[in-house]
Parts: sequence; structure tokens; C-alpha cells
Amino acid sequence: MRRAARAACSYDADAADGGLMSIVMGLLGELSRIGRLASGGYDRRAWTGADLDCRHWFVQCADALDLEVETDRNGNLWAWWGADTGTSALVVGSHLDSVLAGGAFDGPLGIASAFAAIAQLRRDGYEPSRPVAVAVFADSEGARFGVEQIGSRLMTGALPAEVALALRDEGGTAMADAVTGAGLDPGRMGRDPARLARIGEVIELHIEQGRLPTRDGAHEGLAAAGAAIGVAERIWPHGQWRVDIDGRQDHGGTSAMQGRKDPVTGLANVVLAVRRAAVAHGAMATVGDLRIEPGSPSTIAATARLWIDARAGDEARIRRLLRDVRRMSGFDPVQEAWTAGTTFDPALTAGLAAALGDVPVLPAGAGHDAGVFASAGIPAAMILVRNRSGVTHSPAEHADEADCEAGVDALTTAIRVRSRAASVRVRG
Amino acid sequence: MRRAARAACSYDADAADGGLMSIVMGLLGELSRIGRLASGGYDRRAWTGADLDCRHWFVQCADALDLEVETDRNGNLWAWWGADTGTSALVVGSHLDSVLAGGAFDGPLGIASAFAAIAQLRRDGYEPSRPVAVAVFADSEGARFGVEQIGSRLMTGALPAEVALALRDEGGTAMADAVTGAGLDPGRMGRDPARLARIGEVIELHIEQGRLPTRDGAHEGLAAAGAAIGVAERIWPHGQWRVDIDGRQDHGGTSAMQGRKDPVTGLANVVLAVRRAAVAHGAMATVGDLRIEPGSPSTIAATARLWIDARAGDEARIRRLLRDVRRMSGFDPVQEAWTAGTTFDPALTAGLAAALGDVPVLPAGAGHDAGVFASAGIPAAMILVRNRSGVTHSPAEHADEADCEAGVDALTTAIRVRSRAASVRVRG
Repeated sequence: MRRAARAACSYDADAADGGLMSIVMGLLGELSRIGRLASGGYDRRAWTGADLDCRHWFVQCADALDLEVETDRNGNLWAWWGADTGTSALVVGSHLDSVLAGGAFDGPLGIASAFAAIAQLRRDGYEPSRPVAVAVFADSEGARFGVEQIGSRLMTGALPAEVALALRDEGGTAMADAVTGAGLDPGRMGRDPARLARIGEVIELHIEQGRLPTRDGAHEGLAAAGAAIGVAERIWPHGQWRVDIDGRQDHGGTSAMQGRKDPVTGLANVVLAVRRAAVAHGAMATVGDLRIEPGSPSTIAATARLWIDARAGDEARIRRLLRDVRRMSGFDPVQEAWTAGTTFDPALTAGLAAALGDVPVLPAGAGHDAGVFASAGIPAAMILVRNRSGVTHSPAEHADEADCEAGVDALTTAIRVRSRAASVRVRG
Repeated sequence: MRRAARAACSYDADAADGGLMSIVMGLLGELSRIGRLASGGYDRRAWTGADLDCRHWFVQCADALDLEVETDRNGNLWAWWGADTGTSALVVGSHLDSVLAGGAFDGPLGIASAFAAIAQLRRDGYEPSRPVAVAVFADSEGARFGVEQIGSRLMTGALPAEVALALRDEGGTAMADAVTGAGLDPGRMGRDPARLARIGEVIELHIEQGRLPTRDGAHEGLAAAGAAIGVAERIWPHGQWRVDIDGRQDHGGTSAMQGRKDPVTGLANVVLAVRRAAVAHGAMATVGDLRIEPGSPSTIAATARLWIDARAGDEARIRRLLRDVRRMSGFDPVQEAWTAGTTFDPALTAGLAAALGDVPVLPAGAGHDAGVFASAGIPAAMILVRNRSGVTHSPAEHADEADCEAGVDALTTAIRVRSRAASVRVRG
């Protein structure tokens, strides 16, 4: 695969001076050249040239920080700080891939912040008492093959390898071929017990996405709370459904309105039903992708297809939403993906919130690799960095520089606290 | 351009025996191999390999019938029967290009019937007293560049060459490049007065499209009238409008329903408004193509775009339809194409209907090259062949073999009557 623009990691351990320059903004600035679209957003979908360039940048940064890099069987990248002491590792990580036309922070902020935190700790002469790993989880956005967090789900076994490898992208390329093209062996993909055994806990730093109400309704989001940093408490249950609508293709200029079977009308009814049902049940639901065939202005379409993304504070709301869509539109959504609600480790989350200065504890609407590990029984937590733009999965996504630096400070504190924690699992 | 499958014309003037085999079905059978999709429909959009293969077949058939072939400045093909006598020609023609996933009859039936009619007349020893031309009008469907009847409109000057040549297809290819690739000189395209002067009148045979009510409401379509053949009286005014809807791209899983600016909701409202307004005003309107960006299931789209095709018995109904769409949806459709209502030459049409045995006279909802010539002041008429399927622009489009043969007989009669008509224009 051709790699268009490789950004070299400019971090220099000897020259770096956190007081004079922001390491995290420097690292994000390097990444900002990779996979950029004319619209200002990014296309770094998994295993594309842009994604591989981001992964290459990761390896260079890890080298500059003297961290040992590994690629695991599922394509996740690991940069290790500290020798394997037989105790389980503290993993700080996120992802580098993006949705189509995504923003600059969703994913990369967690990786760049982890490098910046380790650089600070190194400069301060800090030594962890257990290994610390910066991890890049592969294909976390699911923007290419339609399933989120593929790298971490393969590793934990939540997604069987044979299912993942058979997924196809829009252009018809199977995931097996995409990962082979990136130098991986599809035959070795799947649950990875040895690597799982090395993980003690996972802390993922991520830009805040949207503004969900807290359980006690105190506020919605970090901007409303007046806080640069928060901790995620749980991930809402969420899923994706497909609706297929059959029509009867005909000439639009010669077919009476009465006798038509136009699937685009059905599509419109589903779109409006989804919105009405989401509002009625206090859920979130989106039709973000749709297509019609053959797609010619004067031709009544033969078929229409759309996807519904639905999320809510609890599963019952989502079930009611789908029931209403079915009732209102007459079409039956078929489930394509489902992620149960995930609660992060309560003790770890509470301890982290306290260590960071009693920062707000918030729900999260989006899926994350930390959530995949939490679902697999591995202690996991998330640090959220305020997003004043209020939007993600968009070129407009934005975190202020001061908030990004507060994020690095928070992650630095988290690593200090957790890499010497007494509750570390002893392996074996 | 690579040509995938060239069908050779199998017509053999010496072997042909109309009593034993149907020439027209044989010719259509040869074409049926070109541009066929797995769905059973055809993709012969203008200047693609499949379109060029159809044009090549035309040249071979003309050769087999001993007709002299010319390509005019605008890419229209002409096969001449009879010497240039200084009198204007009788043109029988249609098109060979198709919409995406179109049927087998829309266009090719007119060309194959013209060849079959000439073969019959030749066999009968008939000699026309003015030249007869079988014409293939280029890019008639408008399925590639969004404008219908490009070849005939360029020739009459209804479409300026600089406008046409700048049109781009879905893949971004300009029409200027597409026609250059097909061996034409874009610099020579445009109004062609010399060729127009050679045309006395145009008769286009075409498969019936849809079932529109006659002026007196006697019936809707040939199947209801119990007739294999009809004559078109006029073409409804019709046009195409584009609606662009701006949204605010965001993560669908983290953005509250209340604050969203989701263009897909607007799109759904326009689709339903179009249908309601068309029914209310006795018009026909279709949303046959739409797209959203970036098109990711969990992302609230940034923009949505759709096209409205609208037609009615009179322009006022279309204006009222668009006014209602604007009012109901809040969006303002932008006109991309407009064809005024066209009435075919009344004397020619009435004479033809009588000569064919008082066949029904019907309105037509779709644009045709014959309509372009009628609008340019050239006497034109259309013969329609019954379409029992009721659909066109669809793989399901169908005309029975007996009806196709009745079409050839009708066209044979029309050529006999009109190629010796007293009202022939004398050129110069």
C-alpha cells in the first residue's frame, strides 16, 4: 500500500522542555498532516495508507521515547515502558484510526497524551513499579468494516476472528485482505489469552463526546460543569440496525403516483419515525448512512437501505424506540451490531476521580476500547478531556490547548498513582 | 476505451425471410448481450464501452442493409437509404443508450424496428422518393451527465455546446473528455444547420412508457385501450430540481436530539412533501437520487442532497407542486433542467394515426428526441408500442413480440406514406 505522507516524530528526549513547549500539541501537530481531507476533516479508516502512516508515526515516537514496540496478533500496537516484572501492566491507550471526515482529537489525543505523560514522568526521574504500555487499538471506529473496536474485541474474544475477517468494506475488500495488505497474518488473529494476562488495568484518555446528563442530572458535559477533565462512569448500551426496503423500479415520468411502489417514501418514513421515537423515549438515534438503487433522478428506485444507530441510558429505552420505529414505519430493523451497557470499574473510577481533584463523573454515549476491556472483566477507566465544540466525528471537533495539557497532567497523575498501586495483579 | 462484447449484426439481406423469422426480435436479441447487468437490466450510459458496442452494432447492421453510415458533429449516427435528391429526408430514429439498470426496449426498439421496416420495404422492392435515414441520437437518456437528449439538443442548438461539454459524470469525467475518448472532436460540437436543413420530418418509434390519461379521459395507456400501437400527441412539460440541505456533522451517539441539525430529517421531509404535492396537483414527481455526506452510520450527516423529477399535463401544476414542496419542507428546490411541454405536429400525427388504422392518440410523460425536433420547429411524430409491464427504466420493462412486430408494420406503413408524401420540403 502506498503511503502518501509520513510524519516523522519530532520528539527529542534531550531537547524536550515541557515548560517551554507543549509536547502533546507538538505530537498532535505532526499527526495533523496525515489523512487530511479538503474539508478539513480526516480519513484514517483502518488499514488505509493514512492509518498505516499514523501507525508508523507511533513507532517513531515510541523509538524517540525509548519504548519497545510490539504488534500483537490482532494488529494492536504496544509501546512498553519498564521491564516485564511478572506483574500485570498498566495500559494507557486509545486509537489512531478515524471515521470518514472525522476530527483531529478523537483517538489521537489519547495516544499523544500518553506519550507526553511518559515524557514528563521520565524527565522527572519517575520509575513505575510495573510495566506501563501505550497501546493503539486497531480499527476502533469501525468506519471501514462496520464493527467498532475490532482490535480490542478480537483480543478479548468478544468478536470471533472468522466473523471479523469476512467483513467487507464499501469497495468489497474483505478485512482478511486489508490486514494481509498491512502485513498481518489473518490466520493468527483471534482471542489472545497470553496478552490479556499481561494487562492489569486499562486507562483510556479521550476527548469528550457530546453532553449526556449525569445520573443525578447535575449537569450535561464538562463545559456545563466548568471542568477541563472528567472521568467516565459507564458507556450507554448501543447498537446498529439495518432497514431494507423493496420497491418497484420504474420511469418516474410515466408512472402514476397511485400505483407506485417507491422505496424512497418508505425510507423517509423510517427516518422521521426514528427521530420521533428517539425524542419520545429520551434516547439518541441517527440515520447517518443510506443508499438507494439504482439512483437515477428520473427513475423510481428499486430498493432503499438505511442504517439506524440507537443509544440510550438503558436497554429498555432502545427496545421501545425500535418497537415504535417498526410500528410507525411498517419496516422491521435488522440488528447488525449490539454493545451492552458497560460500567467501568467503580473503585478504579472513584479513585481516579478523587486523585484528579474530584473531577466530574460522566456517562459516555460512544463505544471505546476501554469499554471492551471492562466488558471482558479487566479493570478499566476513562479520562475525558473537555470538548468545547460539543461535536465529534466532525472536522469541527475541538479541545482547547489548555484542556489538552490538563489531560496530560491528569494522565500523568493517573500513571503515577496506578503504576505503583498495591492492587496490581500478579501474573501466573 | 475497451469494448467488452461486440455483437455482430446477423442480418443477412439474402437470407432474411420475414415470414419465417422476426427480424426485429433477432436484432434486439443481438443487442441483449451488450451492457447487461447481473440484475438483468442494462447499463449503456453514453460513451461507455457498452454504448460504443451498441453503436458499433448499429454500423454493422447498416452495412448489412447496404445503408451509408455517417457520424455527425454531435455524435449522432445516421444510416442513409436512398440518394440525396435535394429534398429533405424522412428520419426514423431513436437512441441506443440506457439509464443505469434500464430495460431492453427503451431506445433500441426504435432502431431495430427501423432496420426491420427498411428490410421489409427493400424486400418488397419499394423505393422511397426522398432519402430515409435511421438515426441514433447520442446520449438521449441523460443518465450520465444529467441532461436528456444531448445529441439532438446540441444539433438543434437547444443546448449550447459549451454547457454540454462542461457537464461532468458521477466520477468527475467531463463530457468533453468522454466524447474525445469516443473519437469525437468537442470543438466541432454544437448547432448543425446544414444537417438540420436535410431533415424533412422525424418519426420516432418507442416503447410506451407508463399510462397517462388521454385528454378526453377515455383511457390510460394502450393496454387499457386494447391496442398494440398508438401515436403520441404531446410530451408533458418536465424538469429536474436539486435540493441541498446543510446540517452540522456530529457523533450520532453523543449528540442530544434537541440540539441536532440533521440534514437527513430535512431530506425525509422533502421526499414526503414531493409525494404529497404531486398527488394533490395531479402531477408526477419522483426523488430517484439522493446522497448524504459523509455517510457513516453513527455520524450525523454534514449535508444531504436530493433531486426532484416533476412532470404534469401543464406547467402550472408543476409550479404549484414546487411551491408546495417549498412551503411544506422549508427548502428551496433549484432548477437543473427544464423541458417545456411539446406538441407534435398535429397534421402529421393525425395523418399517421389514420394511416395506422385510427390507433389511439396518447400523451407522453417522458422526453424524447422527437420532442426536441418538434420544439425546434421540425415536423415530428411518435409511434408507441404497447408495454404490458407498465414499467420502463427498469429490467422489468417489456413489450410482447407480437406488439413489437405490429410496431415494425406500423413503421413500415409510416415510411411508405411519408417517404412519398407531397408535403416534402425542398431544400435550398
